[in-house]
Amino acid sequence: MKLLEERIRRDGNVKPGNVLKVDSFLNHQMDVELYNEMGKEFRRLFPSEKINKILTIEASGIGIACIAAQYFHVPVVFAKKSQSINLDGEQYSTRIESFTHKRVYDVIVSKKYLQKGDRVLIIDDFLANGCAVAGLIDLIESAGAEIEGVGIAVEKGFQEGGRLLRGKGIRVESLAIVESMDDKTGEIVFRESCE
Amino acid sequence: MKLLEERIRRDGNVKPGNVLKVDSFLNHQMDVELYNEMGKEFRRLFPSEKINKILTIEASGIGIACIAAQYFHVPVVFAKKSQSINLDGEQYSTRIESFTHKRVYDVIVSKKYLQKGDRVLIIDDFLANGCAVAGLIDLIESAGAEIEGVGIAVEKGFQEGGRLLRGKGIRVESLAIVESMDDKTGEIVFRESCE
Repeated sequence: MKLLEERIRRDGNVKPGNVLKVDSFLNHQMDVELYNEMGKEFRRLFPSEKINKILTIEASGIGIACIAAQYFHVPVVFAKKSQSINLDGEQYSTRIESFTHKRVYDVIVSKKYLQKGDRVLIIDDFLANGCAVAGLIDLIESAGAEIEGVGIAVEKGFQEGGRLLRGKGIRVESLAIVESMDDKTGEIVFRESCE
Repeated sequence: MKLLEERIRRDGNVKPGNVLKVDSFLNHQMDVELYNEMGKEFRRLFPSEKINKILTIEASGIGIACIAAQYFHVPVVFAKKSQSINLDGEQYSTRIESFTHKRVYDVIVSKKYLQKGDRVLIIDDFLANGCAVAGLIDLIESAGAEIEGVGIAVEKGFQEGGRLLRGKGIRVESLAIVESMDDKTGEIVFRESCE
């Protein structure tokens, strides 16, 4: 998606350790008009009328998922990190290792909101090593629901998450795929798309 | 807001310990069409053209804030619980005690996204003892920005948060104010509004 690539080039910052900071528009301050264009693109990429639920994970996936959901006319469920006493105890859980935060989270979703028969589109802001998405897939499979696909804003194409997921036959659509980036020059190279 | 009150009556669950579970449509599974009606109502209640930013806190405030932001045409910033290594170190921080999770969080916002001159509308899903909103106000004041108001989905009117904030002269608009609730009968009484 050219619009997102241009925005990443303009406002993204490459930091040492393969960190791409896009917090001015994507995951701390959020540009909701950009999110709307992304939401429309996700709908174009995943036109299936069978999708009846969008699943994301707190926190930075929630905004993108909610705006996108307007184009799918389905509810969003967000998986929660760590147990909340406000949940019923009736939940699916998995463990996710965070690349960004260098820690392991327990992640849960209520059994009421993810069920057999659901056709689920996963949406998240980043795909790097794929641990978060793998955890969400684990939750979907625990529920006996089906995965319609994975929609990602920014994929780090030089990390293995995308390749692993696609290798399992899962449809992954990333709006921008960073092929390489250089924290010394700030250069960001995107994988060419067929847009 | 009658639509939200009716939804809380229909789908909310009163649990012992003054817990109101609305996780089927508000803060775990999210009804984005309801969020849109709430967003329009927030805009009606806060018509000021001076508002240039919406501030919320992860996680369950983010979806409501993003959908509402579409009616304000401003970006959303969400305060983050605990430090992320992806932030620059240049941040305002405060501590917030969570009623729901019975713990204390460090909450941060980057100095880049909250600045002197900003006129900020706070949006969150719940107002109970007011600790989360007080923390967000602390962040806004640290930045030298101004508070235009506080928009809340569900206020627990029998807890002190709303009274304390309004007592400081802050404009608080809650779309539904629960005056009392009974976990034995499930009855929920709302404060009468002037709608």
